[in-house]
Amino acid sequence: MAELPLPPGSTIGILGGGQLGRMLSQAASRLGFDVVILDPEENSPAGRVSRGQIVAAYDDPTALGVFGRVCDVVTFEFENVPAASVERLAEAGALVAPGPTALAVAQDRVDEKTFLNAVGATTVAFAPVDDLADLQAALETLGTPALLKTRRDGYDGKGQVWIKSPKQAEAALAELGGRPAILEARAAFTRELSIIAARGRDGSVAVYPLGENKHAGGVLRTTNAPAQIDAKTEKRARAIAASILDGLAYVGVIGIELFDVPGKDGGDGTLLVNEIAPRVHNTGHWTQDGCVCDQFEQHIRALAGWPLGPTKAHAQVEMTNLLGDEVEQWSKLAAKPDQRLHLYGKAEARPGRKMAHVNRVKALT
Amino acid sequence: MAELPLPPGSTIGILGGGQLGRMLSQAASRLGFDVVILDPEENSPAGRVSRGQIVAAYDDPTALGVFGRVCDVVTFEFENVPAASVERLAEAGALVAPGPTALAVAQDRVDEKTFLNAVGATTVAFAPVDDLADLQAALETLGTPALLKTRRDGYDGKGQVWIKSPKQAEAALAELGGRPAILEARAAFTRELSIIAARGRDGSVAVYPLGENKHAGGVLRTTNAPAQIDAKTEKRARAIAASILDGLAYVGVIGIELFDVPGKDGGDGTLLVNEIAPRVHNTGHWTQDGCVCDQFEQHIRALAGWPLGPTKAHAQVEMTNLLGDEVEQWSKLAAKPDQRLHLYGKAEARPGRKMAHVNRVKALT
Repeated sequence: MAELPLPPGSTIGILGGGQLGRMLSQAASRLGFDVVILDPEENSPAGRVSRGQIVAAYDDPTALGVFGRVCDVVTFEFENVPAASVERLAEAGALVAPGPTALAVAQDRVDEKTFLNAVGATTVAFAPVDDLADLQAALETLGTPALLKTRRDGYDGKGQVWIKSPKQAEAALAELGGRPAILEARAAFTRELSIIAARGRDGSVAVYPLGENKHAGGVLRTTNAPAQIDAKTEKRARAIAASILDGLAYVGVIGIELFDVPGKDGGDGTLLVNEIAPRVHNTGHWTQDGCVCDQFEQHIRALAGWPLGPTKAHAQVEMTNLLGDEVEQWSKLAAKPDQRLHLYGKAEARPGRKMAHVNRVKALT
Repeated sequence: MAELPLPPGSTIGILGGGQLGRMLSQAASRLGFDVVILDPEENSPAGRVSRGQIVAAYDDPTALGVFGRVCDVVTFEFENVPAASVERLAEAGALVAPGPTALAVAQDRVDEKTFLNAVGATTVAFAPVDDLADLQAALETLGTPALLKTRRDGYDGKGQVWIKSPKQAEAALAELGGRPAILEARAAFTRELSIIAARGRDGSVAVYPLGENKHAGGVLRTTNAPAQIDAKTEKRARAIAASILDGLAYVGVIGIELFDVPGKDGGDGTLLVNEIAPRVHNTGHWTQDGCVCDQFEQHIRALAGWPLGPTKAHAQVEMTNLLGDEVEQWSKLAAKPDQRLHLYGKAEARPGRKMAHVNRVKALT
């Protein structure tokens, strides 16, 4: 078993070789760690900046055994990691973080919302839906419009459909292919916020200033951080983050998406948790140019058992994702002194694919 | 031949796989480039964070041919690159930067000082020394104490000896093994400063704020930047940097070490150029945490034909090298929120070896 805190020169494994794995690898190498990637795609973005890559499926038991033996600590760039893979890694001797509970909760929307409400992090009203009878009952309780989602495996707006009237119930179920689902009431939110937070192996918690996010077509377009927010709401957000992290006995960085619901008749508003991602998060990319210790270094620090780094912002940052051929703007953006480019090294700019992001840095106001 | 500006996805080659190559590689990968290292040592610090490494001697013609073909642009982390190797790389189709003139000038202390004085960048008085007669004549002209150095191949205080009286001439020559040498007059400086500057392929020049350096045993210990300096001296330093860069038709980042010599009787002081290093420089590591575009990204931008990045400091930084077993302080330093650790991934902490550096970040005063 690895000694903690993990000394420089140790090996950190990352399951998944996309841009999140790449930026985690870069952060780990700045701290003197070696990094090995496991990803079925050869020469993945992360593999190309790491000590090595094991090219194998995420559930390949032999590959996982080797990976677990060569790595002191293993982490993930995505949450849909098979539970059996995590077990295999732990058996092979790697410390795995975040742990199986966090993954299980994040993989199932019903379990996730049940957990969140149990730790006092309010969500929209919801109901599990296994068949048409469930859905009809849920629509009666939650009203319309309501959002039907698969319980598992959805991301970037995929696997979900709005139901505007009870008549659409059957078609909506069919659209999701009859998979186990969840019906969510519509939240009357005015904006989407997110929290990037971390918990260390010693239970310490560090929370970054909130970001305000804009999505289009289910995909994140921009994050503006620190978000304009009153002190009371900020405090509430920090308490939500701590409850979630402690409730999961979490180790690493987590991304928490929130709905900001204004109060009625001048009363206090509410923050509803939309979903959690047990990993570094696209809405935390602003920290690379807004904080001295970004979310990637923070995650590495947490899993290596190092003290968490500072989370204060020293700049106002607007992060914009460059999707598909928008990456061709690189040469124009490179000429702007306030725009910090982060390119992922992906060869093929397929439509909608996250190719890069740019952080526009302004002085704090 | 590579198209310029070099698009992301292109391959940048770095001759030398130490910490400078490693930090260059990390900067290049943030901009979406692939990096290949050539270094005779397997699994070099830079190789471990790059797409690949060619393990071969720096003058191996076959290896250089392959390296030059797979890379669009090639650069160096050290200045003692054989001229024949540069030719081989260019023949194989790689754009090489900085160019042969800069390397030749930086490799020979007599050529270097001759060039510097020719472009108006004053140095201490000096004389080439090939034999005892040369040295005796030079000691008569320059006086004692004076510093005898090999013309080529010295670094970190190696290959140099102080001569305190003419009687020591013969022994000093013997100590340098009879190699071609240079005698330098002693400068009455009060402190050592350095300039990190860059020149783009379009001839644009960008200069970072000056750093103030402290050495011990010929090795850099700390850089404090931006240095406390009056506007007139700062302007003079910037002019020196521009003269040198333009005089060499330079492309990339250069490190320029200066002696700050105070004026007599309240008159203006002088900046003498001690030496130039045609590469990123240890005294520029502070830019990683003091500027949005650090010297490593700046070098990559210059050689890729991208616009140069901003050089303004947003923080006061004290950079300290961690030599040999000083790197064992990592866990203490990791707990300090104002200390930014940069570890090089070197396995063996030999005495005096540069293992890491730490940037202490303070608000600008």
